[in-house]
Amino acid sequence: MAQARKIIIDTDPGQDDAVAILLALASPELEVLGITAVAGNVPLALTEKNARKVCELACRPDVRVFAGAKRPLVRDLVTAEHVHGKTGLDGPELPEPRMALDGRHAVDFLVETLMAHAPGEITLCTLGPLTNIALALLREPEIAPRVREIVMMGGGFFEGGNVTPAAEFNIYVDPHAADVVFRSGIPIVVMPLDVTHKALTTAVRVAAIRKLGTPVAVATAQMLEFFERFDEQKYGSDGGPLHDPCVIAYLIEPGLFGGRRCNVSVETASELTMGMTVVDWWGVTERPKNALVMRDIDDDGFFALLTARLGRL
Amino acid sequence: MAQARKIIIDTDPGQDDAVAILLALASPELEVLGITAVAGNVPLALTEKNARKVCELACRPDVRVFAGAKRPLVRDLVTAEHVHGKTGLDGPELPEPRMALDGRHAVDFLVETLMAHAPGEITLCTLGPLTNIALALLREPEIAPRVREIVMMGGGFFEGGNVTPAAEFNIYVDPHAADVVFRSGIPIVVMPLDVTHKALTTAVRVAAIRKLGTPVAVATAQMLEFFERFDEQKYGSDGGPLHDPCVIAYLIEPGLFGGRRCNVSVETASELTMGMTVVDWWGVTERPKNALVMRDIDDDGFFALLTARLGRL
Amino acid sequence: MAQARKIIIDTDPGQDDAVAILLALASPELEVLGITAVAGNVPLALTEKNARKVCELACRPDVRVFAGAKRPLVRDLVTAEHVHGKTGLDGPELPEPRMALDGRHAVDFLVETLMAHAPGEITLCTLGPLTNIALALLREPEIAPRVREIVMMGGGFFEGGNVTPAAEFNIYVDPHAADVVFRSGIPIVVMPLDVTHKALTTAVRVAAIRKLGTPVAVATAQMLEFFERFDEQKYGSDGGPLHDPCVIAYLIEPGLFGGRRCNVSVETASELTMGMTVVDWWGVTERPKNALVMRDIDDDGFFALLTARLGRL
Amino acid sequence: MAQARKIIIDTDPGQDDAVAILLALASPELEVLGITAVAGNVPLALTEKNARKVCELACRPDVRVFAGAKRPLVRDLVTAEHVHGKTGLDGPELPEPRMALDGRHAVDFLVETLMAHAPGEITLCTLGPLTNIALALLREPEIAPRVREIVMMGGGFFEGGNVTPAAEFNIYVDPHAADVVFRSGIPIVVMPLDVTHKALTTAVRVAAIRKLGTPVAVATAQMLEFFERFDEQKYGSDGGPLHDPCVIAYLIEPGLFGGRRCNVSVETASELTMGMTVVDWWGVTERPKNALVMRDIDDDGFFALLTARLGRL
Repeated sequence: MAQARKIIIDTDPGQDDAVAILLALASPELEVLGITAVAGNVPLALTEKNARKVCELACRPDVRVFAGAKRPLVRDLVTAEHVHGKTGLDGPELPEPRMALDGRHAVDFLVETLMAHAPGEITLCTLGPLTNIALALLREPEIAPRVREIVMMGGGFFEGGNVTPAAEFNIYVDPHAADVVFRSGIPIVVMPLDVTHKALTTAVRVAAIRKLGTPVAVATAQMLEFFERFDEQKYGSDGGPLHDPCVIAYLIEPGLFGGRRCNVSVETASELTMGMTVVDWWGVTERPKNALVMRDIDDDGFFALLTARLGRL
Repeated sequence: MAQARKIIIDTDPGQDDAVAILLALASPELEVLGITAVAGNVPLALTEKNARKVCELACRPDVRVFAGAKRPLVRDLVTAEHVHGKTGLDGPELPEPRMALDGRHAVDFLVETLMAHAPGEITLCTLGPLTNIALALLREPEIAPRVREIVMMGGGFFEGGNVTPAAEFNIYVDPHAADVVFRSGIPIVVMPLDVTHKALTTAVRVAAIRKLGTPVAVATAQMLEFFERFDEQKYGSDGGPLHDPCVIAYLIEPGLFGGRRCNVSVETASELTMGMTVVDWWGVTERPKNALVMRDIDDDGFFALLTARLGRL
Repeated sequence: MAQARKIIIDTDPGQDDAVAILLALASPELEVLGITAVAGNVPLALTEKNARKVCELACRPDVRVFAGAKRPLVRDLVTAEHVHGKTGLDGPELPEPRMALDGRHAVDFLVETLMAHAPGEITLCTLGPLTNIALALLREPEIAPRVREIVMMGGGFFEGGNVTPAAEFNIYVDPHAADVVFRSGIPIVVMPLDVTHKALTTAVRVAAIRKLGTPVAVATAQMLEFFERFDEQKYGSDGGPLHDPCVIAYLIEPGLFGGRRCNVSVETASELTMGMTVVDWWGVTERPKNALVMRDIDDDGFFALLTARLGRL
Repeated sequence: MAQARKIIIDTDPGQDDAVAILLALASPELEVLGITAVAGNVPLALTEKNARKVCELACRPDVRVFAGAKRPLVRDLVTAEHVHGKTGLDGPELPEPRMALDGRHAVDFLVETLMAHAPGEITLCTLGPLTNIALALLREPEIAPRVREIVMMGGGFFEGGNVTPAAEFNIYVDPHAADVVFRSGIPIVVMPLDVTHKALTTAVRVAAIRKLGTPVAVATAQMLEFFERFDEQKYGSDGGPLHDPCVIAYLIEPGLFGGRRCNVSVETASELTMGMTVVDWWGVTERPKNALVMRDIDDDGFFALLTARLGRL
């Protein structure tokens, strides 16, 4: 087998972040160098704790977890307890983590790790607001040419937004950080709402996961059932969109997804459209093609992959 | 039969505007009180002439045509000759119109006609930038409660834009006018790109129109074949979106369309998203539901209606 | 004596507007073709009535007064009763006007009068929001090269704003209209707060006017004493700034004022600075020099002129 | 004598920054805990070197100098070689520094030093863009209540801007950082262009410094003569504005300056006014009074202080 691909997961768990972390830890194709937490779905004190809980759920207390930014670059922090519950990880009863937080700041870990590796070795998987990544780029611009690519859950275009009519939560929370990242020159793969809203946690799919019977599988099913409530009620759908695991699935089986290279620009000037990812899908502007924006997903294939992998933990 | 519904068509022909005018003139359910031209697809001198050409093509030189605004409220005029051709009505060879332009300014006609009718009698059908309508509202705010409703081709949301990634042409050309109209309190029905991009002028449909054999039908087929080139090349589709006739079809058979009452707000602050119609489809804001935004169309039914009606002219 | 200069006064009286009108009517160098009223300091119904009151105070019921825009181009109307009082002309007890409003819309009067005169014959004196002027330019762009110049009270730069920290009232009320006017190519002379805050209605100056003893002089003194209260309280100054008469004084004695040709651009995108007139006084941009912006005034000379002229009525 | 006041100087030298550093090092009332360099007048590689050159000119190689941000938070870096010369410190021939840069990142030094001292012990003197300070606040929000106050050269209001008509250079370069700082709750004293343009390096004043005859004095005179060229040419003044030393002089003799507590808000939405410091000098808004904004200076007293202190080095 080929050498595992080195990744750092930047995240604000969040149930779907948790499932993404589990999927990564279950996949031998990926080597998780560390997990960097950021404020987003819930405040940083919870997201870094939740990341540790998830590592322990996966019996991987050896994974290093780092705390990063407590707030966005410019705007005040907005959180989403109405979706994720008070803890951010409502659903299962997970024990308080015993593994310690690594003492280093997440931004320092990002910079030092990237500078210590050869260019093109490390992929950043971002599941939350891009504050940590932007701060790393601000601290050491030389990391940009060293990142292999950023695979990002964020944005939405043809699907519209989820936190406002025009903006997806991760980008809305820190649009300035997103602007820095999209203009950084780093290769970017985007998993927007246009993809993730096709990856629904239907009753059948959640049942298949629960049926695995392992503690990880049962906890995952509990997380999904809590998490999907908000979107089921909003959209009247069977299941909710399983956003963040799409990022990890892409690294394992890119063929599950289909998209197009085009320009993504982030709105930072107007309150009405703040944090919108404007995607030039049809190439009507001269703006540089700075991202591979996904729009299609083999959703059955995606859930088959996810379920199979969760069964390994 | 019920009394015909009184409408004023505000338009910037444009081949699809022309077909909309033909559809209206062919439909006994509608009484066209006048046609007001505005700068948009091409400059005003062409749009008002094109409107007269279309009336004569329909053998209706009695219809009054008025010239309105030569430019948008605030921004410089942008036109779309790359779509509509140099004349705005490229395709058929239509003779220079012999009928005269009415001497009154379109805005005066709008104001005076609305003030002379009882509230709720007149429907405005807008097929171009909303400059004339906004200027009428500015000249006489009292017209607002007198308009029965505005049925508008304009905007786009889940489909994105057509002139920029975020904005549809009619709204982009005069976003400030659109902002005035959407905040006017007048009931509004919107036919956005989300609908019109499902109403494609496929080869089969255009052939069915041509087969009618009348001068109107042949000219219509020629217009559609010219007009569809741009979008066919851009989108790789069979046929182009037949935007403006959706407005008239809605007045004849509203059941062809499906949509939702929600808020539409127009971006006027940011260049990146200028002229975007932000639609709160999922009701995530507290903004007032100021429009019935259509998203679905029975496209076969729509073309059946259009073809049948064109056959009457 | 040279032929009188033809002017149209566009205004939203307002006490200082009233004094400006009186100054114009008292000055043989100027021929007032008409007065066009606009919503601003108070709603249109009051400003057009106030304009007529002032004409009658000056024993000039022959002057034609026209009602124009009831609201700004895009934004909601903001008024300033806290400065001008409930009527807009608080202070003296002026009788209800007996002279009639001219039936034509102010915008039509502007367009028709300008088109009926040779280019360069007519000067527009604007004392309020620029809505009427912008609407005239929108209705007939051909008026632009016919206007001799616009002499405008509006804006502020080194003095800051008066309605917000950054914006002066006339421009703030209709920034989009101001943007249209400043980009119209018409020669513009600006009397900003930087000038008018040096033209203070000190007790001595008001006493000199009252001492003239005529009904006009007494009413003027009463208007000034009411009007100056707001600014005296805000700035702790002896007297308030006598804004609008500077426009008329410039036409009579331009040497009273000193300024510089430079670019003026109007902020229309940001709420924080909405309506600010950004003046490139030091020429640090490449923007065209579209205005002669005044900054200095011979304030004693100005009040001497004003007082002498008021004595003629 | 009272205990020296602990300060950290954040700076982008720049000749006027250099004079400010010299003034601080010459003043026993102040204890310079460190100097943090930021990109601004010239890129970071030059500003950190220039800071060390100045320390050595003052025979203070013991002062710790730290390198910070290489670029602003969101926008691309803009520099001002046209004012400061290619090195940022053109004028005298200063030797390459022998003292080493401290290895720590400026932001880490700021955070660690503030967290290691009691609240209210440390004053931040900012002479350049506020990137380092904003990054420190983002890294550790808990530093905010520990800062005694920020004394800042930046902004301008009644004076207008210097880099654009509306914006002063330090704020324009990183408006988002300035926005973060002004909303941080830290007490702020602002020395805007309104003050510094009254502190002119007239020929007499520069001659008085040169006459001190010391190497520091001669180098200072050479720096000032280079630096003043740009503003002398632009404004036609005798001497240029000596911006940054006002910050240090305020800490030594606050009575030299006069100002007012009011709100300062930073424009970050509009390109036209980007980076403007909107000062609510007259209290017309409800915004919190977040800064003491200076407007007056005893300029003779200021230069007397500066000259006397430079004589001590």
